[in-house]
Amino acid sequence: MQTVSENKSFGGIQGVYSHASDACGCDMTFGLFLPEQAAEGPVPVLWYLSGLTCTHENAMVKAGAQAWAAEAGIALVFPDTSPRGEGVADDEAYDLGKGAGFYVNATEKPWAPHFRMWDYVTEELPNIITANFAIAEDRQAITGHSMGGHGALTMAMRLPGRFRSVSAFAPIAHPSQSDWGRKQLAAYLGADESLWAPHDSTLLMKRLGFDGPVLIDQGSKDQFLELLKPEALAQAMMERRQNGTFRMQPGYDHSYFFVSSFMHDHIAFHAEALYGN
Amino acid sequence: MQTVSENKSFGGIQGVYSHASDACGCDMTFGLFLPEQAAEGPVPVLWYLSGLTCTHENAMVKAGAQAWAAEAGIALVFPDTSPRGEGVADDEAYDLGKGAGFYVNATEKPWAPHFRMWDYVTEELPNIITANFAIAEDRQAITGHSMGGHGALTMAMRLPGRFRSVSAFAPIAHPSQSDWGRKQLAAYLGADESLWAPHDSTLLMKRLGFDGPVLIDQGSKDQFLELLKPEALAQAMMERRQNGTFRMQPGYDHSYFFVSSFMHDHIAFHAEALYGN
Repeated sequence: MQTVSENKSFGGIQGVYSHASDACGCDMTFGLFLPEQAAEGPVPVLWYLSGLTCTHENAMVKAGAQAWAAEAGIALVFPDTSPRGEGVADDEAYDLGKGAGFYVNATEKPWAPHFRMWDYVTEELPNIITANFAIAEDRQAITGHSMGGHGALTMAMRLPGRFRSVSAFAPIAHPSQSDWGRKQLAAYLGADESLWAPHDSTLLMKRLGFDGPVLIDQGSKDQFLELLKPEALAQAMMERRQNGTFRMQPGYDHSYFFVSSFMHDHIAFHAEALYGN
Repeated sequence: MQTVSENKSFGGIQGVYSHASDACGCDMTFGLFLPEQAAEGPVPVLWYLSGLTCTHENAMVKAGAQAWAAEAGIALVFPDTSPRGEGVADDEAYDLGKGAGFYVNATEKPWAPHFRMWDYVTEELPNIITANFAIAEDRQAITGHSMGGHGALTMAMRLPGRFRSVSAFAPIAHPSQSDWGRKQLAAYLGADESLWAPHDSTLLMKRLGFDGPVLIDQGSKDQFLELLKPEALAQAMMERRQNGTFRMQPGYDHSYFFVSSFMHDHIAFHAEALYGN
């Protein structure tokens, strides 16, 4: 693991690190904010998964999360959204290939060799950060924006016991029924839609739910509402009687101006779960 | 209007008053909490509509609302849930007739002469309280529990401009598709289901929505979840992109122990709307 940069931030350190990834078969880069409380011992960690076109950097510089994470004594991890490098397949569209990994393990050509973001985020990167930083492995939570909200919700539901709480900002909530999803799941996983179901938060909510609190924020003026399908996830949450809150925030769009406006709420929400018993 | 009782409560006055009702054709009783700020001039008002089997008294003594209303300087009105008296029709079931007015104007026998709770709560009682107490007519909000949540939501959506905010505790959210609703709407309004639609919050949310913020709390261990249908209203809210929050509160049931646990949140929510511009 190499240190790309480290900057002091709100009393802690905002670092950027790179490493050779076995899961993705390429070099990967991630951001990690470590609050000053980590000097005294392992701190809880909140994973932040980013959306389409993002790298590890977008949320790190635009989400405004460090201020509140510092206050709460929580580390933040910002993974990249896809494999990177010259040998990695790509597509001309912004929503397939690089920057658009959708947090799955691809099985189809030409994506299968590198697009293994599920394994990268759920197995390889957790091992790296717990081995190298003062992170309390038993106190993890996860959030994300758009495609990253999809990743956060699917991982939280499919890995019971891993995360104490999950939240999402404008998640892609029902990708098997959306143009943000059908195209990518078909490309990465093939035409058999039964293989898509484990990557659809609405379907997972109906089938599994989450053993902890859920918080979803969605802007009412989001330009991608028809692709996100918040109503499907809200219906599934309440039908399941899932411990959780679904908020439609009037006037907000899909941007980081929306994400940063509610970041304090989300970090406070996770802090309550992470510092409980 | 006669004063039945007045008790000092959190610096203000919790009163109970009775009057001859034109709408209901009988004597009606209501509770009204007036905070001490009312001595200096008209104060905003929050309507609280109660559920099946309740009178004006249940919420007044069990919801724990006065503490927060006093702090916020907001009056509370607690109407009864049906007409009362010897000449008023009734049914052996707890969920039809007295204590079960469902906030409609009945058109069918034997209910039509007295069961006019829609007119009573939306027209007659507002005139009485604004004529007799220091209530700011232009600063009203509404909430309710169960059948009262149904009443609050339907009134808020069908009377645009009347209420600045609406909330509900475990509302009967889709009565035209529920045994808490089909029986009563058929009895009071007749078999033509098109006449039920204006009294179904889920259908009104799809058709009209509400021009202000909405807050819904529902307990996950509510013994009546199949009758309340929270998932239908949540889906309709998010599909409409309604400014609002829907919370599934883990472990809470249908009782006033649930209502009182979240009363502070609801009064703070309404206070923000009532004291805005």
